[in-house]
Amino acid sequence: MKRVRLFVAYDGTNYCGWQVQPNGITIEEKLNKSLKDLTGEEIHVIGASRTDSGVHALGNVAVFDTNSSIPPERFAYALNQRLPEDIVVVRSDEVSLQWHPRHQNEIMKIYEYHIYNAQVPNPLKSRYSVFVSFPLNVDQMRKGADFIKGEHDFASFCNIRTNTLDTVRTVYDINITKKGPDITIRVTGNGFLYNMVRIIAGTLIRVGRGFYEPEKIKDILDARKHTSEGVTAPPNGLVLKEIVYGKEEK
Amino acid sequence: MKRVRLFVAYDGTNYCGWQVQPNGITIEEKLNKSLKDLTGEEIHVIGASRTDSGVHALGNVAVFDTNSSIPPERFAYALNQRLPEDIVVVRSDEVSLQWHPRHQNEIMKIYEYHIYNAQVPNPLKSRYSVFVSFPLNVDQMRKGADFIKGEHDFASFCNIRTNTLDTVRTVYDINITKKGPDITIRVTGNGFLYNMVRIIAGTLIRVGRGFYEPEKIKDILDARKHTSEGVTAPPNGLVLKEIVYGKEEK
Repeated sequence: MKRVRLFVAYDGTNYCGWQVQPNGITIEEKLNKSLKDLTGEEIHVIGASRTDSGVHALGNVAVFDTNSSIPPERFAYALNQRLPEDIVVVRSDEVSLQWHPRHQNEIMKIYEYHIYNAQVPNPLKSRYSVFVSFPLNVDQMRKGADFIKGEHDFASFCNIRTNTLDTVRTVYDINITKKGPDITIRVTGNGFLYNMVRIIAGTLIRVGRGFYEPEKIKDILDARKHTSEGVTAPPNGLVLKEIVYGKEEK
Repeated sequence: MKRVRLFVAYDGTNYCGWQVQPNGITIEEKLNKSLKDLTGEEIHVIGASRTDSGVHALGNVAVFDTNSSIPPERFAYALNQRLPEDIVVVRSDEVSLQWHPRHQNEIMKIYEYHIYNAQVPNPLKSRYSVFVSFPLNVDQMRKGADFIKGEHDFASFCNIRTNTLDTVRTVYDINITKKGPDITIRVTGNGFLYNMVRIIAGTLIRVGRGFYEPEKIKDILDARKHTSEGVTAPPNGLVLKEIVYGKEEK
């Protein structure tokens, strides 16, 4: 028996998110099925991030246990022959049988939220960004984002339907770049609550439009409860870029 | 009666190209239908470039004649309310009744062909680029591309199913840029034969892989007939970026 780790990229458009659920096809389900085809075993992968319906990833992480004789590094190639084109295993390796993708001392997750800010939408961008026609003031958005940095109780930036009791998280960094009409919010943290990055993005868009002063972000954060003031941006703008684990833990 | 010009962007993935045809939905058909909804008139647009099935555009051009009282500049907005999300009219204006999008003395068309060159495909790139896993030598591709520049008989770089008798075209410029795994071939010319940019791209990919020496491009060009040596790259990597008309002609 060994534990194999997968680094997974996907276009989330056609999936009901990561986690297996009764009404709709998910990434996890496609991986389980391809692993069964490949090994003959009933395999249920454990994922690091249970991304929402429509959210994309370039580096989600999953593990599974197997008795297969396939070398761990070969799973990436073998799975890609069986997976649909919009799910790709970027690489695979062996980890210890205790290694769990969500329970590690040192985890850094990197998300990017993409905005297309122009007068007219661009059909070649709409799959991977949210279109905003009102001019966004990026400097104001950056001022607002500064309040997000650090360790906070992010209860206000969490979907109300969550089960999580501990809503304290650390945002290591959040930076906003603009290149022509493309605006990217890049957030790095030790973990994120349900919808947290999308609520941060949606609220910063309100700051950029001038609906909110940047200081409003601090007020929302201090309220420590979900309100209608923190708006959730659409899923298609969000990409889980990478999950970085501490070196000693492998 | 006035003539209105449209600048049209589209994601070609779900369309059988520009031109109306019996088996499948086309961009032209969607525009005609939306114009009928809007004006009540039977309108058939005339396009500048009849892009192939699966090819994208950011700036195709079309005209139509109408008795509608809608101001020419307002057609863009009004059509976008009726068109599907993957077709966008970027702007609209009035031109003289003699103005034809294909028959102008000065036309410059700009196409880009996108290649994703890495060991593993990226599902967030596959809709708008061709995946090439063999390392491409961009310097060799540039040497090959130099033979394409200028006025030539491009009969060898044309789909055999064309009706065109005159296969002489001028390529003003062709340049290849590389940014990490993303390689872009940008071609500017006064016009392009059926599949010409895709055959140029497919043949340059063979040069990049080392299948052909750069000089092979000259040999293929000199043959002046379609051969199996000029391979057609897939449509999804191609974008019609812009069509520039001479200033005096409006």
